[in-house]
Amino acid sequence: MFIVMSPGATREQIAAVCDEISRMGLKAHPINGTTRTAIGVTGNKTQVAADHLLVLSGVEDVVHVSSPYRLASRESHPDSTVINVGGVKFGGSEFSVIAGPCAVESREQLMTAANRVARAGVKLFRGGAYKPRTSPYSFQGLGKPGLELLAEVRAKYGLRIVTEAIDTETIEMVAEYSDIIQLGARNMQNFSLLKKAGRMRKPVLLKRGMAATVEEFLLAAEYILSEGNEQVILCERGIRTMAEPARNVLDLAVIPQIKLLSHLPIIADPSHGTGRQARILPMSRASLAAGADGLLIEVHHAPEAALSDGPQAITLDEFDTLMAELRKLGPAVGRIVH
Amino acid sequence: MFIVMSPGATREQIAAVCDEISRMGLKAHPINGTTRTAIGVTGNKTQVAADHLLVLSGVEDVVHVSSPYRLASRESHPDSTVINVGGVKFGGSEFSVIAGPCAVESREQLMTAANRVARAGVKLFRGGAYKPRTSPYSFQGLGKPGLELLAEVRAKYGLRIVTEAIDTETIEMVAEYSDIIQLGARNMQNFSLLKKAGRMRKPVLLKRGMAATVEEFLLAAEYILSEGNEQVILCERGIRTMAEPARNVLDLAVIPQIKLLSHLPIIADPSHGTGRQARILPMSRASLAAGADGLLIEVHHAPEAALSDGPQAITLDEFDTLMAELRKLGPAVGRIVH
Amino acid sequence: MFIVMSPGATREQIAAVCDEISRMGLKAHPINGTTRTAIGVTGNKTQVAADHLLVLSGVEDVVHVSSPYRLASRESHPDSTVINVGGVKFGGSEFSVIAGPCAVESREQLMTAANRVARAGVKLFRGGAYKPRTSPYSFQGLGKPGLELLAEVRAKYGLRIVTEAIDTETIEMVAEYSDIIQLGARNMQNFSLLKKAGRMRKPVLLKRGMAATVEEFLLAAEYILSEGNEQVILCERGIRTMAEPARNVLDLAVIPQIKLLSHLPIIADPSHGTGRQARILPMSRASLAAGADGLLIEVHHAPEAALSDGPQAITLDEFDTLMAELRKLGPAVGRIVH
Amino acid sequence: MFIVMSPGATREQIAAVCDEISRMGLKAHPINGTTRTAIGVTGNKTQVAADHLLVLSGVEDVVHVSSPYRLASRESHPDSTVINVGGVKFGGSEFSVIAGPCAVESREQLMTAANRVARAGVKLFRGGAYKPRTSPYSFQGLGKPGLELLAEVRAKYGLRIVTEAIDTETIEMVAEYSDIIQLGARNMQNFSLLKKAGRMRKPVLLKRGMAATVEEFLLAAEYILSEGNEQVILCERGIRTMAEPARNVLDLAVIPQIKLLSHLPIIADPSHGTGRQARILPMSRASLAAGADGLLIEVHHAPEAALSDGPQAITLDEFDTLMAELRKLGPAVGRIVH
Repeated sequence: MFIVMSPGATREQIAAVCDEISRMGLKAHPINGTTRTAIGVTGNKTQVAADHLLVLSGVEDVVHVSSPYRLASRESHPDSTVINVGGVKFGGSEFSVIAGPCAVESREQLMTAANRVARAGVKLFRGGAYKPRTSPYSFQGLGKPGLELLAEVRAKYGLRIVTEAIDTETIEMVAEYSDIIQLGARNMQNFSLLKKAGRMRKPVLLKRGMAATVEEFLLAAEYILSEGNEQVILCERGIRTMAEPARNVLDLAVIPQIKLLSHLPIIADPSHGTGRQARILPMSRASLAAGADGLLIEVHHAPEAALSDGPQAITLDEFDTLMAELRKLGPAVGRIVH
Repeated sequence: MFIVMSPGATREQIAAVCDEISRMGLKAHPINGTTRTAIGVTGNKTQVAADHLLVLSGVEDVVHVSSPYRLASRESHPDSTVINVGGVKFGGSEFSVIAGPCAVESREQLMTAANRVARAGVKLFRGGAYKPRTSPYSFQGLGKPGLELLAEVRAKYGLRIVTEAIDTETIEMVAEYSDIIQLGARNMQNFSLLKKAGRMRKPVLLKRGMAATVEEFLLAAEYILSEGNEQVILCERGIRTMAEPARNVLDLAVIPQIKLLSHLPIIADPSHGTGRQARILPMSRASLAAGADGLLIEVHHAPEAALSDGPQAITLDEFDTLMAELRKLGPAVGRIVH
Repeated sequence: MFIVMSPGATREQIAAVCDEISRMGLKAHPINGTTRTAIGVTGNKTQVAADHLLVLSGVEDVVHVSSPYRLASRESHPDSTVINVGGVKFGGSEFSVIAGPCAVESREQLMTAANRVARAGVKLFRGGAYKPRTSPYSFQGLGKPGLELLAEVRAKYGLRIVTEAIDTETIEMVAEYSDIIQLGARNMQNFSLLKKAGRMRKPVLLKRGMAATVEEFLLAAEYILSEGNEQVILCERGIRTMAEPARNVLDLAVIPQIKLLSHLPIIADPSHGTGRQARILPMSRASLAAGADGLLIEVHHAPEAALSDGPQAITLDEFDTLMAELRKLGPAVGRIVH
Repeated sequence: MFIVMSPGATREQIAAVCDEISRMGLKAHPINGTTRTAIGVTGNKTQVAADHLLVLSGVEDVVHVSSPYRLASRESHPDSTVINVGGVKFGGSEFSVIAGPCAVESREQLMTAANRVARAGVKLFRGGAYKPRTSPYSFQGLGKPGLELLAEVRAKYGLRIVTEAIDTETIEMVAEYSDIIQLGARNMQNFSLLKKAGRMRKPVLLKRGMAATVEEFLLAAEYILSEGNEQVILCERGIRTMAEPARNVLDLAVIPQIKLLSHLPIIADPSHGTGRQARILPMSRASLAAGADGLLIEVHHAPEAALSDGPQAITLDEFDTLMAELRKLGPAVGRIVH
């Protein structure tokens, strides 16, 4: 950490800051420059809470050098974490696809999709029983009966189940029915939910918030890790920009960046990240080429009849094409796609 | 609603879209332009879910004309809503200031601040007992003992209490101890929490999410209103932009815009919206001049010792100056400041 | 400046960085922390180009402490600059309004507006003869005949003229006809134009780019100042955000921030900054209350017939109301409005 | 085009809008909905200037259906444009890499890089003789001597030259020395420069502005096309977001989107788009996988000694690795890489 003093800071002000640093159990190293003094601070193992120093007279800025997350950082855990979900892995040389409809709507809809997803050689199935919707008048999900339908999919097709928990009341039930608990972008900083997810014994798929920085994203993961759950899979799903009305920008460069900073696996969601069918195939290939550990993809047997997010789903035939393309691409980037 | 067909759309595709519109109980009005056909749709009283039309062959875009919120819209409720909190009003000619520390830290800290806030003629006091923090290692609030200290403030100084609820488990207790329940920016789309807030019998102060559009903001209010709670006070607190590392931009133009679209009162939070003391006084004055119905402001007797958000708090002396400035400005814009 | 080494940096890597710092004529102060080493650098009077250090092995980050602009900084020039345009001042206790149509369209349009602007007691008149337009098919301005009409306005009504220069070919002619040369947001980083503006002997009104940081904004001013033109008036005109399709957010908090960092005057443009009439009056008042030194405002005798930007112009009657409101507000914030 | 009337619009107001539409030579089709009237407009071949309608009483919004660009649109030109630069193609099945240093610094630097770029089988060489720099104190390029060094590279290594024009004064000379004229992101809306580039007889590489929408990007291309130059290559180089201090987000999803809307080729610039070496290889692969027609990549024999943008350059050895990776990937996505 460095404390940057303003150009007109007095000797007394500098001394007062050094005293406060000592009081915090740290060591101050003042360096007198041409126009101002800066104070190096040592003795902290991780980032310390020091924003209150900003309030001291003569202080212009506090610059953190250490990262504020510990358990999520690669420094603390140099080897990449590999998460094993019933034999399917995230974080190693495999590229693991999770596919299924946005929402569980009916047994027929679910079984039609599950049958095709399984036939395509994919091992993980997604579908929301609880849906966070922008409008209170939109379809809110089937709830528990939706979870039961997902259990039928597991039993019938041997697919592992990924489904979303939207609140602390229902997360335990969601954990019971799922192989991976998904936490959505709007809940990335729902800290009570993160803490409870950290006490579940199931892997958690954590989506990046729509305006979250990388540091905030890793701190959200840290909430889960620090409660004892080491199985966190990160997911880039697009961030809000001025680029175009209502379109997210899938930030694929975050994938190599996260790989540097953290040991956790990261997958991409080109369905939410791009919003329209025609962009999903190219962006799925791009995700694999950028180094993602997998994909979360929305499929529907009849997107025009979907109760939520139809325009960003691809059909089951398009999904077959997508998987064929990814399997062609995998070896060229050293990945086994399934 | 309008359906915009792509330039190469066939007669059959256009007919299929018209059929689907009829099936939805609405009426289609095709208009054949020079390069393409568009289809006007009538019969809907409010915005209908129609994104699935985007998936039909030949459809390029679906343009909504009606707003998706009903109860929050000024169309449904032409007169401005005035919310009365024990005699203090939001939404009329008053400009009502809410002041207090970011977090409840101790009895001494709270009473020192409350004493000065009350002496300054302000009627509403804020302080967080439950704190949503970016890092799991930051101070998370005192919890219930914090609420009890706030109750002491009410008893001793006659101040109405504004405090934040962060989850569905504790909102009932928060409602019991507070005069206004605050919901934070990170929870603006925590729909389970919004629904539960809609079942409380206390006014709700709803902060805009850091990347929320105006439509999403009003739909979040709609969640509360549609559960039966008509007392929603909106709060602009700054949005994320590229403007500068880690600085929010207080979007004051949203205030006249919300006044056009909705009947709900709206206040501004220049503390979170600007992040540093030197910007708080000018932006408080600007909020009043822009037409806000009040202010949420963080004060602390010793910002350098604050357990959270010190740099954005002003001292109790600065707060006296701020109130004096606002009182000088009020009459020039037709507002009674208190 | 500080060099932050990565946690695994070797002694040799640290030594190599210190050597490079010496080679640059600066002094290195290594500080060994618990998990990593940081190197304080002194000897630089202003920010030095040091990004190449990022490429050295073991370097994780380079943190600048000094600001990269010199002439624009308040450190170099503690007193606020007051720019005098034929008796009208920017940067002191006056609040100076510049009003007029977006584009010069015809003598009648111009004289109608100028007559009313002058009658309202305003001293500065704006109007574009050269128009930067998003589409090549939009009205591009009258060019030189437009400048001649503006000269007529000056002669007839005694108004000082503010008009935009869009390229290096025509800036000299624009300078000849105007009292203030305006440079638009899209040209904020047109460095050839900035340099040439720096060689003109007229004040320059420099608008902030739509995605410009404060540092970039002040560096653009620095281009003008460093060529010898000390008369730069900054103008906040709204930045691009995700807030809503096609709407800019007027970033008023930049006003107190610029006042801290720089001695240059700064005005606001609520017409471009908000885009629609209903937001212009409240945001004009807010600009004054936030500490702006003036306003740039678009007026038109018949906005519905304007050849450019009609929706963001106010009528001449609305302008009278606006000036009355500002004059009522001025004394409450210690400003003389004219 | 549609005109959306406000809910309370009167019959007279609706009639006045229809009259104005007729006056514009277009046909109005009013549709009376439950809560409001909308007016379909036909007769326009491309988007018409109609924002002035927003000013008429009772009008709430004007919704454009036609795109405002003509020559750049795929509607007007269904086949993809293939641009042939001395035998190297953009827009067909080839993936054409452009590599070289950010700035031309010296003969030795340039020849070292050119030798390796040519040996790697790449046909196009980049290097800036005129550099747009954020600070006036940064290296501004060698100017004409830099262009002469580029001509030597062409003569010696048979590489086609890509170099930037930054103003209307020097673009002719730049055109003389180059095979492709590059226009930078900061100049995307420097309309005088775009017009002049449209009168050159060389292909133009147009970079997307840092906050530009797709529509603005294509309208900038339209400026060049409408002056008679049909050879425009678009380039995505990252947009400004809140994602992280000072980092651009490479918006790869814009590639399939541009392919739908326009016939022009589009390449990606992962050097500027990502800013740091470790992200360049993954994002180069991702660009190819997303459907880009080529790449613009910065290489330097000694990035730590580069006079500009060192941190985003890769070494010549890293470039060999990059090309090998791309060549491995090409066949898997149906592209010939060179």
